[in-house]
Amino acid sequence: MAVVKIKQGYQEIDDAIQSSVITKVKGTAVTNTSESGLLVWGPEEYVIPPQGEDVLFVVTSFLETPNQKMGYCAEVRTFLLNGHCSVDEDCKKGKMVESGHGVMSGKCIRNNEKSNGTCEIFGWCPTEKNIKPQKPLLKNAENFTIYIKNFIQFPKFSFSKSNILKTTDQSYLKKCRYDEKQYPYCPIFRLGDITRRAGCNFQDMATLGGAIGIVIQWDCDLDKGTSHCNPEYQFTRLDATVSNKSIATGFNFRHARYFKNAAGESYRSLYKVYGIRFHILVYGKAGKFAIVPLVVNIGSGLAVMGAGTFFCDIVLLYLTTGKKSYKDQKFEVLKYEKQHTSTDVDIS
Amino acid sequence: MAVVKIKQGYQEIDDAIQSSVITKVKGTAVTNTSESGLLVWGPEEYVIPPQGEDVLFVVTSFLETPNQKMGYCAEVRTFLLNGHCSVDEDCKKGKMVESGHGVMSGKCIRNNEKSNGTCEIFGWCPTEKNIKPQKPLLKNAENFTIYIKNFIQFPKFSFSKSNILKTTDQSYLKKCRYDEKQYPYCPIFRLGDITRRAGCNFQDMATLGGAIGIVIQWDCDLDKGTSHCNPEYQFTRLDATVSNKSIATGFNFRHARYFKNAAGESYRSLYKVYGIRFHILVYGKAGKFAIVPLVVNIGSGLAVMGAGTFFCDIVLLYLTTGKKSYKDQKFEVLKYEKQHTSTDVDIS
Amino acid sequence: MAVVKIKQGYQEIDDAIQSSVITKVKGTAVTNTSESGLLVWGPEEYVIPPQGEDVLFVVTSFLETPNQKMGYCAEVRTFLLNGHCSVDEDCKKGKMVESGHGVMSGKCIRNNEKSNGTCEIFGWCPTEKNIKPQKPLLKNAENFTIYIKNFIQFPKFSFSKSNILKTTDQSYLKKCRYDEKQYPYCPIFRLGDITRRAGCNFQDMATLGGAIGIVIQWDCDLDKGTSHCNPEYQFTRLDATVSNKSIATGFNFRHARYFKNAAGESYRSLYKVYGIRFHILVYGKAGKFAIVPLVVNIGSGLAVMGAGTFFCDIVLLYLTTGKKSYKDQKFEVLKYEKQHTSTDVDIS
Repeated sequence: MAVVKIKQGYQEIDDAIQSSVITKVKGTAVTNTSESGLLVWGPEEYVIPPQGEDVLFVVTSFLETPNQKMGYCAEVRTFLLNGHCSVDEDCKKGKMVESGHGVMSGKCIRNNEKSNGTCEIFGWCPTEKNIKPQKPLLKNAENFTIYIKNFIQFPKFSFSKSNILKTTDQSYLKKCRYDEKQYPYCPIFRLGDITRRAGCNFQDMATLGGAIGIVIQWDCDLDKGTSHCNPEYQFTRLDATVSNKSIATGFNFRHARYFKNAAGESYRSLYKVYGIRFHILVYGKAGKFAIVPLVVNIGSGLAVMGAGTFFCDIVLLYLTTGKKSYKDQKFEVLKYEKQHTSTDVDIS
Repeated sequence: MAVVKIKQGYQEIDDAIQSSVITKVKGTAVTNTSESGLLVWGPEEYVIPPQGEDVLFVVTSFLETPNQKMGYCAEVRTFLLNGHCSVDEDCKKGKMVESGHGVMSGKCIRNNEKSNGTCEIFGWCPTEKNIKPQKPLLKNAENFTIYIKNFIQFPKFSFSKSNILKTTDQSYLKKCRYDEKQYPYCPIFRLGDITRRAGCNFQDMATLGGAIGIVIQWDCDLDKGTSHCNPEYQFTRLDATVSNKSIATGFNFRHARYFKNAAGESYRSLYKVYGIRFHILVYGKAGKFAIVPLVVNIGSGLAVMGAGTFFCDIVLLYLTTGKKSYKDQKFEVLKYEKQHTSTDVDIS
Repeated sequence: MAVVKIKQGYQEIDDAIQSSVITKVKGTAVTNTSESGLLVWGPEEYVIPPQGEDVLFVVTSFLETPNQKMGYCAEVRTFLLNGHCSVDEDCKKGKMVESGHGVMSGKCIRNNEKSNGTCEIFGWCPTEKNIKPQKPLLKNAENFTIYIKNFIQFPKFSFSKSNILKTTDQSYLKKCRYDEKQYPYCPIFRLGDITRRAGCNFQDMATLGGAIGIVIQWDCDLDKGTSHCNPEYQFTRLDATVSNKSIATGFNFRHARYFKNAAGESYRSLYKVYGIRFHILVYGKAGKFAIVPLVVNIGSGLAVMGAGTFFCDIVLLYLTTGKKSYKDQKFEVLKYEKQHTSTDVDIS
């Protein structure tokens, strides 16, 4: 019956957990760069998307390319050879620069006769500078907080619960910060603590960006009652894998803001944003006593026990010394019957 | 065999449903506020994000703070004490206002010598007014409709289906509205009906916002044929939990639109939007006859039946009155054999 | 024991795979339309949303309605009869045009006395033209590439892996393109190849848009070791269903960019974008040897075998010809016992 006991074979399991997550980030940061000047960042700017999804990106560093216009300029130099040229013939007019920023105009732009250059392109000009950040610009991001609302249901048992526990203290949810020991059920998490629990240093991660998974685990034994069904939080880094780190790690993307001048001409500011992507993953299962799995498991158990006796016989009959004695006892009756039946046959 | 019959133990189950959801909201609303004037709202404005995800937010009320610029202004008064001050020393220059809107300039702004005030900050000014909406501004949101396209697959049985049923009537999908009795398979839902089915009043919910779950359940007995595999819709409120409602309920977030003036200076309009978040959750499983689970369950069943007889014997032998008679009958033969064998031994 | 062997009944299964997906699209396209002029498109413009989700939309065609302002204009003519009128009375002042673009002003706008017209509305004017694209504008979208990073975990076995395999060749991930035969583990996919593998022609699909599912399947026998646990990619069209294609297929939505003129008046450019929606779906399960399922399955197996002998008897006794002989042998002993017991009775 070990099966029944250990694996709780007497319980019916519902692992089709239904979950919905809402998030809200709070905090403010200041940056001061030559392109963008002194800026104050609120959640409406550094959280992408802003509507509180279960996957959210927090900007920790950025590179602005302001006032881009459709026009002609030199393609950017990259370690890839696309768009590099020594003569105009290398820049076929109307051809795209592979993983570049526009379409070639047919001109090759060089500093002087001897040097190599890059093709002139038509596209958003000036092109973005090809520089990597050395340190995060939104240093204070470490102190931002995520408020995670998670609502779950186990339809099979029509049981539902939230990770926000009953509280009489109105201000508790304003002040508390998650701590596995002190406040294991506080739904507000400091970004710096999340990365630390995932085994990363926030400032290191913030420089080139990364991805963190916040796993909310619900393992509920409903026979024990609702109050025993509580969330457990785990934190893992999602981009640092066994594979080549230099390729796999880091996270950034580009977005733009579009403007029009008095003449109605479009121009834009391009933002390359580095940051940390938080993915809230909810898993769980609930168990409740039910007769069916009990029967199935006991059944199997009994069958195995039956098999046991059979194997014992085999052992005693053919593998032990002093088999005879055991054999005698086991087949005495049978032997006897054999004799008799034979005699019966004689008579008739 | 109850196990087999009731739990359909003769079927192989695939509960790894593969699902993809596309949504499209339709409707128009008019608002008239002092800040924003007379506005007509289309889906491209009130649905966030606009690209038809399975999680979508519909704006029902909003608060615009137009023409914010980076500059100096007084921090907003909140019931939290951050940024409150009586003398300049309370506003440490360069320090952030906790859960505030900027960085302190070192000045304390007060109406008069005696009164308390708030610290002056550098940030997006003027700061947003701290007022809660009393009623939804997009009243007509109740009449908006969501068109939900859900495509599912059960890979184990390579079975796929959509919630949009075959129809010859082109205009059916333009006119129909979901109704559990009349049109249980119409994929177009009126927002007001959704909230009603979830047990909420739309206008109440629309004032401060909320979250609704639309569960699409697929329970398919593929032995009965495709036409018996149909979606079932359920509606639940996701933010009203057992926990403290005043904290858990309501849903809003901020987003901004950025502009530049002729001088190239940035300014923005900040929107605090309240609304209802719809989360379409798809669950389901399919069953199909298969020999393996049948064998396993029958096996267990038989083993249990075997155990049954064994237990009966125990009861009759040791727990019932008048055991003897039963014992006699059960062991008569055996008894007899014992005698005989002894006599045989005598003879020889 | 077939159950055990075939269904790997000796393994414990973890099908609660934990997955996180990050995507990055690369490529450039040029469009030239009368409304928008010559435009170069980068990922920051044609990928919606830009932040690398597991659901991403790639613009393949678009219709721009530039410089819309809040004002009065004629409602657009659609095959629906909403907003059509012959006299002013048909346009009730203040009433919404159902699935239209604004609120009626009470006027009916007609070319001449005899013809029918449409109601004048207050809303974003001019209204969008009601034209369908005949061919995709971003033709080069076929050559865009998606880089998919998928990180998975099987918590029960605390096993984690990424779809980006170990590599010493730095530039491999820059050059490789997925190919089920040649490069089955390259995580970079050309859009044209994806649609082809899903059985669609890219340019056809790109005209009115569509939805594609990229399924990443992880079926891991962890007894065989990590290197045998690899992703498998499948591609399916998600919108072309058994149901009425003309209704179900095609995918588009609208979004707007907002501007303000020198006078501070708002105006916007409305974009109706057609494109292909890619949904990356991750599924999988892992198996590892464990004693419990082995016991359960063997148990059931044995029980069934026991039942087997029983059924054989039934057959031989009652369904076969020449039953007697078999019956005799089976019940010989029993018969004999019967006689004897009777004689015993005689004696006494």
